[in-house]
Amino acid sequence: MKLIYSEDHRGHAGAMEMRYDEMIPMSECPERMDAIMGGLAAAGFDDVVPPAAHGLDVVHQIHDPAFVSFLQRCYPLWEEEFGPGGFATAYTFGMRGMDQVPNGSVHSMLSCYTFDVCAPFVKGTWPAINAAKDIALTGVDLMQAGESSVFSVCRPAGHHASQDLAGGYCYLNNAAIAAQAHLNAGAKRVALLDIDYHHGNGTQRIFYERDDVLFLSLHCRPQDEYPFLMGYDTEVGAGPGKGYNVNLPMPRGTGYDDWSKALQLAHERIKAYAPDVLVVSLGVDTYKDDPVGGFVLQTADYIDVGSRIALLGLPTHFIMEGGYAMDALGQNVANLIGGFSKMAAGAGGQ
Amino acid sequence: MKLIYSEDHRGHAGAMEMRYDEMIPMSECPERMDAIMGGLAAAGFDDVVPPAAHGLDVVHQIHDPAFVSFLQRCYPLWEEEFGPGGFATAYTFGMRGMDQVPNGSVHSMLSCYTFDVCAPFVKGTWPAINAAKDIALTGVDLMQAGESSVFSVCRPAGHHASQDLAGGYCYLNNAAIAAQAHLNAGAKRVALLDIDYHHGNGTQRIFYERDDVLFLSLHCRPQDEYPFLMGYDTEVGAGPGKGYNVNLPMPRGTGYDDWSKALQLAHERIKAYAPDVLVVSLGVDTYKDDPVGGFVLQTADYIDVGSRIALLGLPTHFIMEGGYAMDALGQNVANLIGGFSKMAAGAGGQ
Repeated sequence: MKLIYSEDHRGHAGAMEMRYDEMIPMSECPERMDAIMGGLAAAGFDDVVPPAAHGLDVVHQIHDPAFVSFLQRCYPLWEEEFGPGGFATAYTFGMRGMDQVPNGSVHSMLSCYTFDVCAPFVKGTWPAINAAKDIALTGVDLMQAGESSVFSVCRPAGHHASQDLAGGYCYLNNAAIAAQAHLNAGAKRVALLDIDYHHGNGTQRIFYERDDVLFLSLHCRPQDEYPFLMGYDTEVGAGPGKGYNVNLPMPRGTGYDDWSKALQLAHERIKAYAPDVLVVSLGVDTYKDDPVGGFVLQTADYIDVGSRIALLGLPTHFIMEGGYAMDALGQNVANLIGGFSKMAAGAGGQ
Repeated sequence: MKLIYSEDHRGHAGAMEMRYDEMIPMSECPERMDAIMGGLAAAGFDDVVPPAAHGLDVVHQIHDPAFVSFLQRCYPLWEEEFGPGGFATAYTFGMRGMDQVPNGSVHSMLSCYTFDVCAPFVKGTWPAINAAKDIALTGVDLMQAGESSVFSVCRPAGHHASQDLAGGYCYLNNAAIAAQAHLNAGAKRVALLDIDYHHGNGTQRIFYERDDVLFLSLHCRPQDEYPFLMGYDTEVGAGPGKGYNVNLPMPRGTGYDDWSKALQLAHERIKAYAPDVLVVSLGVDTYKDDPVGGFVLQTADYIDVGSRIALLGLPTHFIMEGGYAMDALGQNVANLIGGFSKMAAGAGGQ
C-alpha cells in the first residue's frame, strides 16, 4: 500500500496544552509520525509518495473560506502583536445564543474559529495543515489512478474540525476533504468510518445533513470522554442526512470483544449503504496504554481490525488521526495496515 | 449609603488562570474586597449590612435552573472524581451548530455551561456565588424599605454570565438578578448601566429581547479586548428589545475626556427612557494602571463619574463588578461612591 507522507508537519511543534492546573507539552507531537513511519517501514511498508500540491477548491467545499483564511493568517497576525516564539491560542469562546462576529483582531478570530484550548498555532502550523490536506487529496488522486487502497499519513489530524471550528488538535478535516474529493471524482456514496478513540464531532457536524456520506464513529461515550457534548447514539443526522450518522459510543474501559462487536455493526451498516469508497479515520488511541485514551485494545488486536475492514471489499482510503502511546504507536498502525493488506490480498489481490 | 457585604466570598480563592503559555494565580482574588471595603471605610462609608438569605426564585427568572443546579453541584462532582484540593474548569466548549447536551459528567456540564477558561470552581465557589446573589437581592429589599441608593459589594462579579453560561470570573449575573427583583417589586422600567472596562456580554444576552430593562454598556471595543466577539454598537437588541441595548465601545487607551462623553450619551438615553430604578454594574478596571484593563482613567476621575450618575436623580443600586489594581482599587471605588453621595445629598438629600 502506498503511503502519502511529507516532512512539512514537523514545524507544527512546541506549543503547550492546558491540563487542568498546569500547562504541559502537547501529547500531539512530530515524533508521533516518526514512530508511525518507522513502524510501517519495519513491517515492509516503504512505498512512500510525497503529496502533490492542491489548491483550496475542495477545502472550500467543506470549510468556510473565512475559517480557512483564519488558519492561514492566525500565526502571522499573532506574531505581529506578540513577537516571535510563542503560540497563539484562544481562552474565551463566544456566547451561545448571540452571533459570533470576528473582526480584524486575531483574538476575535481565535475565539470565533476554535472551540477549545487544544488547537494552538505556531509558525509551522499552517504549512503542516496545508501539507496534511495535500496528503489527503493526493491519496484520492492515487486511487483515481488505480490504487485500491492508500494511506494518507496526515498530521495534524482532522476529525474534530468542523466547517468553521478548529479544536482537539485538528484544523482542516482531512478525512472530510478526502470524502468530498472522492465524490467529486465520481463516487456516488462514500462511507466514512472513524475508529479513533474520540468522537469525530467535526466530521459528524460537516456531514450531518447530507446523505452522500455515511458517517460512522466508534468512540468513547460522551459521559466519559472528550468532546463530552456530542457522540450520542441518538444523533442520527438531520434533514436529508437523517439516518446517515451512526454513533457507536462505548464506556471507558471497553476491550476488543465489545469494540469488535461495534465494528461489526458498522460493517453491516456500511454493507447496506453500498458505498463506492470507504474512508477510514484511523486513530489508534484505543490502545490500552494510550495516555489520551481509555479503551484497552491490545497491539495484536489491530491486525484483526485491519482484516475486518478489508473484508468489506471496498476501495479504502486510510487517513491518520490520533494515537499517542509512543512505544506502541508504530506497531499498532503497522498491524492495522498489515492486517488489512494481508486480508485484501487474500481476498483478491488488492 | 448602606453597603451590603458578607465574608462568604472568601472561600472562592486559590484557582489559577491561563495566560497564554502559563497558568498564573487569578487576578480576581478575595483581597480585592479588602481593598474595596477598606477604601470605603476610610472615606466614611461604614454602614455595612449583612445580606439576608434569599431563595432561588428570582435567580430562576434570569437563569436556566439546570445551569444554576450545575453551579451548585460542579465542585462537589469534581471532587468526587479528582479528590479535594484542585479546581474545576473546562478546556473544551462544544461545537457551534450542534445541540449541546450535557450528561451526568461534570466535564460535560463544564463544557456546556461555561464559555471560557476564566470561571474555575473551588470548594468555596458556590457559597460565594450564593452570597453575592443575596447581597444583590438584599440591596433591592433595602431600597424597597426606603433607601434611595445602596451598594451591593458582590464577589464574584456577574456581568459576563448569561442565562446558561458562566465565564470571565462571573457565575450568576447579580446585576440582572437585581434588575429583575426591582421589576418584581413594582418598577416598570429599569436602566442597567455597565461601566466596567469589559463589555457586559452576559447582561446584554439576558435582556437582549426585553424592553423592560434598558442595558447600556461603556467598554473597550471588541477589536481590542475581551470578550472579543460582542459589544459592537450595532448590537441594539432584538424583537421587543430592539432599541433597548446600547453599546458604547471605545478603543484601548481611552481617557476620561472621551469616556465621560460616552457617559453623557448614556445619561441622555437613560433620561429619555425614564426608568424607575437605575442599576449600575460598577467596575473600576477602567483605571490607568489596572492589570486587566486598557483605559487610562485617573483616581480623581471617579469622583466625577459618581457625581454624573447622581445627576440622573434616580434611585440607584450599585453592584460591584471588576477592578484589579490593588493599590488604587479602594480609593477608586470610594471616590465614585463618595462623588455620588455628595452630589445626591446636594441635589436633595439622597
